[in-house]
Amino acid sequence: MVVFAPRYVWLVMSVFFLHLCLDRCVQAVRLLEKEFEQKVDHFDFSSRAGRTYKQRYLMTDQFWRKGVGPIFLYTGNEGDVWSFANNTGLMFELAPSFGALVVFAEHRYYGTSLPFGTLSFERENVGLLSIEQTLADFATLLLHLQRDLGAEKCPVIAFGGSYGGMLSAYFRMKYPNLVAGALAASSPLYLVAGLGDEFQFFRDVTADFERYHHKCPNMVRAGFAAIKSLASKQQWVALSSKMRLCGDLNSSNDLPYLEGWIRNAFTVLAMMDYPYKTTFMSPMPANPVNVACDILLKSDDPLTGLRDAAGIMYNSSGTKNCYNIFEDFKPCADPTGCGVGWGSLAWDYQACTEINLLCSSNGKTDMFPVISFTSALREQYCQKQWGVTPRQDWLATQYWGTDLRAASNIIFSNGDLDPWANGGIRKNLSQSLVSIMISGGAHHLDLRSSNPKDPPSVIQARKQEELLIRGFIQEAVMSERSTFERD
Amino acid sequence: MVVFAPRYVWLVMSVFFLHLCLDRCVQAVRLLEKEFEQKVDHFDFSSRAGRTYKQRYLMTDQFWRKGVGPIFLYTGNEGDVWSFANNTGLMFELAPSFGALVVFAEHRYYGTSLPFGTLSFERENVGLLSIEQTLADFATLLLHLQRDLGAEKCPVIAFGGSYGGMLSAYFRMKYPNLVAGALAASSPLYLVAGLGDEFQFFRDVTADFERYHHKCPNMVRAGFAAIKSLASKQQWVALSSKMRLCGDLNSSNDLPYLEGWIRNAFTVLAMMDYPYKTTFMSPMPANPVNVACDILLKSDDPLTGLRDAAGIMYNSSGTKNCYNIFEDFKPCADPTGCGVGWGSLAWDYQACTEINLLCSSNGKTDMFPVISFTSALREQYCQKQWGVTPRQDWLATQYWGTDLRAASNIIFSNGDLDPWANGGIRKNLSQSLVSIMISGGAHHLDLRSSNPKDPPSVIQARKQEELLIRGFIQEAVMSERSTFERD
Repeated sequence: MVVFAPRYVWLVMSVFFLHLCLDRCVQAVRLLEKEFEQKVDHFDFSSRAGRTYKQRYLMTDQFWRKGVGPIFLYTGNEGDVWSFANNTGLMFELAPSFGALVVFAEHRYYGTSLPFGTLSFERENVGLLSIEQTLADFATLLLHLQRDLGAEKCPVIAFGGSYGGMLSAYFRMKYPNLVAGALAASSPLYLVAGLGDEFQFFRDVTADFERYHHKCPNMVRAGFAAIKSLASKQQWVALSSKMRLCGDLNSSNDLPYLEGWIRNAFTVLAMMDYPYKTTFMSPMPANPVNVACDILLKSDDPLTGLRDAAGIMYNSSGTKNCYNIFEDFKPCADPTGCGVGWGSLAWDYQACTEINLLCSSNGKTDMFPVISFTSALREQYCQKQWGVTPRQDWLATQYWGTDLRAASNIIFSNGDLDPWANGGIRKNLSQSLVSIMISGGAHHLDLRSSNPKDPPSVIQARKQEELLIRGFIQEAVMSERSTFERD
Repeated sequence: MVVFAPRYVWLVMSVFFLHLCLDRCVQAVRLLEKEFEQKVDHFDFSSRAGRTYKQRYLMTDQFWRKGVGPIFLYTGNEGDVWSFANNTGLMFELAPSFGALVVFAEHRYYGTSLPFGTLSFERENVGLLSIEQTLADFATLLLHLQRDLGAEKCPVIAFGGSYGGMLSAYFRMKYPNLVAGALAASSPLYLVAGLGDEFQFFRDVTADFERYHHKCPNMVRAGFAAIKSLASKQQWVALSSKMRLCGDLNSSNDLPYLEGWIRNAFTVLAMMDYPYKTTFMSPMPANPVNVACDILLKSDDPLTGLRDAAGIMYNSSGTKNCYNIFEDFKPCADPTGCGVGWGSLAWDYQACTEINLLCSSNGKTDMFPVISFTSALREQYCQKQWGVTPRQDWLATQYWGTDLRAASNIIFSNGDLDPWANGGIRKNLSQSLVSIMISGGAHHLDLRSSNPKDPPSVIQARKQEELLIRGFIQEAVMSERSTFERD
């Protein structure tokens, strides 16, 4: 779960047009950027009770049947809210036929929604970065919008992808009074609760490369072996030169940076393995896994092959002469990557507290070097970095962990190209806890706008999602009167 | 909801025997008093993350089928945990046939469970007194016990009365992964969420007195009129002497204390209108409402009648020569009474933050003087007292307010003598959200031990509760494997 580093410049204005073409380009989406005066602390009524911050959200009512149509709320995750609006076309495509109001809420401590401004990540302030506070933000914002817009009777559907999908599911679980149903796309609910297999993630990254060509993972292994070999001979200059690094590696202490830098690139290639060009986590060609494998397979030298495959991510513009791995890659509490900037700090903190991401590679069931991330290593890192001890059991306690039986009206969608899929829910748990598997789908492909290159599976998945969402809304409308009124 | 002022002396030892006779007095209940090192702040992982406090709980395993039988957990409310153990005999009566482990968890900021010791109610510390923190305490304690005792597979049933019943319901709603079902006895979930009618509570108190004798409320009204009359003539000495006050009233500023003092007594008489002697909130004769009405009806002077009826509560020992109303009664954010001591501070704070208790009397639909408690008055009081602004919508937002549809496996029991009943759930909401009405039942009579004077309705209610609880446990056992394992 890499944090999104926006590579484009935002215009500072309050109305934006998304480059989405609905109804065959008849209309563009007009998104308003707004701010809500949000409580910094929902759970302590005293010490910082009066303090607020400006939570950013995006909204369009251009499709809304005012006061009647549903509210589609994207429960923003670890990044600038615009990156989710730009990559969740599904909501805009569904909105016209539903007559829906569309809202994207930014997650606290990301984007511009910093509760303590530039001091947000000081130790005395960062503690209010939590899933609990974030859900309470969404609830409070939602109530405000419903009142402000005369939308009290409008059923709400929560949308989210990846960690945002976890949030949409949690939001329905914890606040079913506010949310009629949720679409949780590519959300590894089990994995982050500390369940599952530590080697699953990188094994599934590897499987994506193997699927394209059975020799591809071996080329990656050969590349890493070549690095190891040069390193063991202390040939730092030769290694750095071959990898085209801006500065030379100096000792074996630098090696994990290089290995991590490469592993991260392959992780992103697997997650973003869409059948068309995208600019989500970083600019990517169509089918980046295939592109990377082709580079590796055609390369005479596995080491330079590895470098150029990583370059798909790190040098997408083709303009870099050398790689600054220490800038591109920072070790953090998420072995799949924390990205850079504010967001990376925030995500690092979350991975040090509530969210368990104990993913290791072992070089056997996967194609990467042995890079372990155990509970002990995590504790050590998080103590040093943030002065916190991760609470491994918390997510399983607070968000229902292994046992989702009591939940209802949640769609769990997953793509089989997505290395996160096997950390999530892959079977129906009840009539209204529905799993949708998308063959040939990468990380929440279903949330993206329709594309001529979409595999039939995702077209079918979106149809099923639409049907289920209609059901959730109908159920909410049918039993519109509250239990209180019915009493 | 008055806080319990324990009138008996605790022995400082770790094993206590409850004076409960099970199986016709074959065995007494052996309760262990224990402490758990609990987090002071579950939601801020940084600022006070390391800090813990000693949460008290009571436990007996004498009926437990070790590792197999269920856990009966009382979700402690606003008072010393022993007072709940002493007044919730139902759990001990059910435990043997269920083979249950019985646990009573004390609520933070009550009894000895003070997160910051004697400084707990300082403004910088009191903010951690909240329902959210309290539920997280219960969850954390429960997980600890389950691991410590090898009880991971043992289904948990939450029990609670009044505010404790709200907590048991909320606990099932928010943590259904931990709790198979809940019995929420006499819990005014709607009222505290800010719904319902401000005059309902005192109207229903009045109805209890009217039920015994139609002239009784008029005697109360006459008593209050006599007070008013003397007060309007500034005859403070005569009034104080007739009311047998320890110190004279001095001005009309003192009048609300006298009126509140009396209204509180009648409230407690109605809530504690059990058919036998009790010592719960204070020592009470059997059928205290009848006793009070008999006093009023037999009295020549409505004023002294009022005084002696209040004396049932304030002078149960019969040893007081005069009443110190300023000691017995302190105005607070709960117009039905906050009691005295630590607990009263804590409850006042809760009624100033999350819990809405906007109950007023109007002298028309009830027998009391006009004593209003509006949102505005509450805000003013809470700002002055605690520097906080009540969040009126919070409980309806956070704990599902008017809409409990998505919940399951909760029994809502209410007695028709209980003035809180009409603030709660009085109809079945679904197959597993079951309302039980107890004719002739006062405040959570069903939770008390069996008594030869029990009305048939409560015997029937307890049987139905037992049956439903068996169903909740069976359901949990049948689907023992988690959704994760089934996946």
